Amino acid sequence: MRMVELIERKRDGHELNKAEIDFVIQGYTSGEIPDYQMSAFAMAIFFQGMSSEERVHLTMAMVNSGEQIDLSAIQGIKVDKHSTGGVGDTTTMIVAPMVASVGVPVAKMSGRGLGHTGGTIDKLEAVPGFHVEIDNQQFNHLVNTNHIAIVGQSGNLTPADKKLYALRDVTGTVESIPLIASSIMSKKIASGADAIVLDVKVGSGAFMKDLNNAQELARCMVDIGNQVGRHTVAVISDMNQPLGDAVGNALEIKEAIAVLQGRGSHNLTELCLTLGSHMVMLAQKANSLEEARRMLEESITSGKALETLRVFLHAQGGDATVIDDPSKLPTAPFIYEVNALEDGCIAAIGADQIGLAAMLLGAGRQTKDSIIDLAVGLVLHKKIGDKVSKGDSLLTIHANASSNPEVEQMIYAAYHISPSPVSAPQLIYEVVTWQD
Amino acid sequence: MRMVELIERKRDGHELNKAEIDFVIQGYTSGEIPDYQMSAFAMAIFFQGMSSEERVHLTMAMVNSGEQIDLSAIQGIKVDKHSTGGVGDTTTMIVAPMVASVGVPVAKMSGRGLGHTGGTIDKLEAVPGFHVEIDNQQFNHLVNTNHIAIVGQSGNLTPADKKLYALRDVTGTVESIPLIASSIMSKKIASGADAIVLDVKVGSGAFMKDLNNAQELARCMVDIGNQVGRHTVAVISDMNQPLGDAVGNALEIKEAIAVLQGRGSHNLTELCLTLGSHMVMLAQKANSLEEARRMLEESITSGKALETLRVFLHAQGGDATVIDDPSKLPTAPFIYEVNALEDGCIAAIGADQIGLAAMLLGAGRQTKDSIIDLAVGLVLHKKIGDKVSKGDSLLTIHANASSNPEVEQMIYAAYHISPSPVSAPQLIYEVVTWQD
Repeated sequence: MRMVELIERKRDGHELNKAEIDFVIQGYTSGEIPDYQMSAFAMAIFFQGMSSEERVHLTMAMVNSGEQIDLSAIQGIKVDKHSTGGVGDTTTMIVAPMVASVGVPVAKMSGRGLGHTGGTIDKLEAVPGFHVEIDNQQFNHLVNTNHIAIVGQSGNLTPADKKLYALRDVTGTVESIPLIASSIMSKKIASGADAIVLDVKVGSGAFMKDLNNAQELARCMVDIGNQVGRHTVAVISDMNQPLGDAVGNALEIKEAIAVLQGRGSHNLTELCLTLGSHMVMLAQKANSLEEARRMLEESITSGKALETLRVFLHAQGGDATVIDDPSKLPTAPFIYEVNALEDGCIAAIGADQIGLAAMLLGAGRQTKDSIIDLAVGLVLHKKIGDKVSKGDSLLTIHANASSNPEVEQMIYAAYHISPSPVSAPQLIYEVVTWQD
Repeated sequence: MRMVELIERKRDGHELNKAEIDFVIQGYTSGEIPDYQMSAFAMAIFFQGMSSEERVHLTMAMVNSGEQIDLSAIQGIKVDKHSTGGVGDTTTMIVAPMVASVGVPVAKMSGRGLGHTGGTIDKLEAVPGFHVEIDNQQFNHLVNTNHIAIVGQSGNLTPADKKLYALRDVTGTVESIPLIASSIMSKKIASGADAIVLDVKVGSGAFMKDLNNAQELARCMVDIGNQVGRHTVAVISDMNQPLGDAVGNALEIKEAIAVLQGRGSHNLTELCLTLGSHMVMLAQKANSLEEARRMLEESITSGKALETLRVFLHAQGGDATVIDDPSKLPTAPFIYEVNALEDGCIAAIGADQIGLAAMLLGAGRQTKDSIIDLAVGLVLHKKIGDKVSKGDSLLTIHANASSNPEVEQMIYAAYHISPSPVSAPQLIYEVVTWQD
């Protein structure tokens, strides 16, 4: 087999078989196939796409390129959740304890990562004492006992995907739906989950700007997961504005607590209930989506969900009393309002700009070595469709300075106020399940 | 400017400007832009093509990446000829002395290269004593005196093209018409010619298998040449069978002599007269194509063309008496016939297989270090459309052994004999000139 011939066949629209895709991924991982052939191959895929079979072969070749997490010591159907990423997206910290509280085992591996705020682990570290340095045995024990534990990413998972992603990033081949789908799915599959709920974001603040692409990505991933025996469902949700009200690490923890107390913002609560219901269904803890949702709502009302968060934080060294007294979370020295400059209705909120504003305050990493400020961030008071009068607070800034001109400017640029009424965007566009 | 953004813009169908293309080619030549970005860029070009302006910018960026030959010391309009390559294509050795004999200055730089036979220089070296080791001053003097001289490729011409071609060869990006066109044209332009006649081959034995692609390539090249002030004309000619009768180095020299004596094969003579007429026109030595052709025909009839070959060979150290006594050329020890196994009409001759047969005999280089046997090769006696009876000679093998089973097998596989009559293919499909 010669790589140049495989590039040509893909370029000319032919389908590659399992042996050929294994050859490419094994050769690339070992270094026998050079970057310059792989990038041409990725660009050919960008233009020619991949068949359902090819996507499965690619995903599994990347899974098999490294270690795989063995969760067999954990009882029950382990359901993982993945979000394609957005602004004010605190769902993991809410959904995980919520579904664990009704008996779904949540054995989560999470990351830090770059972005406008930290990853789930960074956010959790806003809780004093919380840590993810637990070994496999402890991890399995905690999930079997409490139905929930979170560890940091460890082990050499999907090295082929890491290498290929770094290459795609500099060769204009990121925006290929089959490549995105197999990258995400390879990581989820290698992490050992039996079933997966995907939150695919669409809108100005998401990687996928339009619904057609988001649908295609969702279908690709659902197709891959189910073909390899991991039941997978995707929820396509709106990211034309920040999902929750808080953007920032400690601020998002506060908001997560509020949702689990039944007093969170509507959109964030609603999406968490939707994602959670599908997780409960995949874990076979309910007979219908309606029943699953009712279980989760009752768990919030009864305080069981919040109690699960408390147990989870405590089990991993965290001071769970932050739940009762959020002032124990890191707090920024300067807290002030950004007020509307005119009357009208909120027509659009540039989620990208809000995210960048939070990053400029110090809430996220610009480079791998940046140090996150867990206290800073933004809390939005107005969302799309809300009426606003001149002087009303649009949002609150939590910062290290009493004035942050660049950040304020970016916030004013993000908010578009219209003189005529605007309706709020739909939150959930579609739930993609498998039709085989 | 960032290379990844230029890749993305090309990928998404946007046009790049001169500064952007210069950035790519300069960066790639200097090594600042890595192979893996360039191969993704080339694959994006494969799918998105290039505008006329982009092709010109790419060509000139490659010309400017290295040295350029200065032919200003040579009087008159220097016209170069280029063939996209085929089997039994001895045109340069015929056309060059033919047009020189009517006053067109032929200042030719030629190569050796890989393939079924050697390059023009290899073939000329079949003439005892002939060499191309002449310096610039001698070269200019010979062209000014005799209107013809040939030197080997020297200097660092179009290093960007060399580097890019090597990369394309291993990344499935050879078959891109704008990349082929700018590669060929950059070399011709850097070689210093004022005007260029291109022989674009089409058919089973050519790189371009179908007429549409050949036409597109021809138009691309004609467009580039004329846009940068080098008058360029392309002739699209048939390569569904070997062009001349001889395939092999000394054998092709013999055939070239025969054509210049007015007793060469029809197709080779006709194509040489066509290419030559356009060269004469571009050199402004005639007022019409008809006049140009008449001048060349008269030069053959009068012996002037042959005399020019004699002077040319002698001036570069060659034993010109080979013209009168071709037995002085290298001769193979074994010469024997391959006979038809059935009656019928020649329906097809796989030019690729004939070329490969010649290479197997030793006429061409398989790798850069192969040593060419100048004596061996094939002489075809039957072409498409010819009637043949069982036992008639299809061709003569000139070899180093009395039997060459692999070669003979390949020849039988190349010849398709049909029971019903077949007409000979058209020789010249189109002449592409510039319409601005």
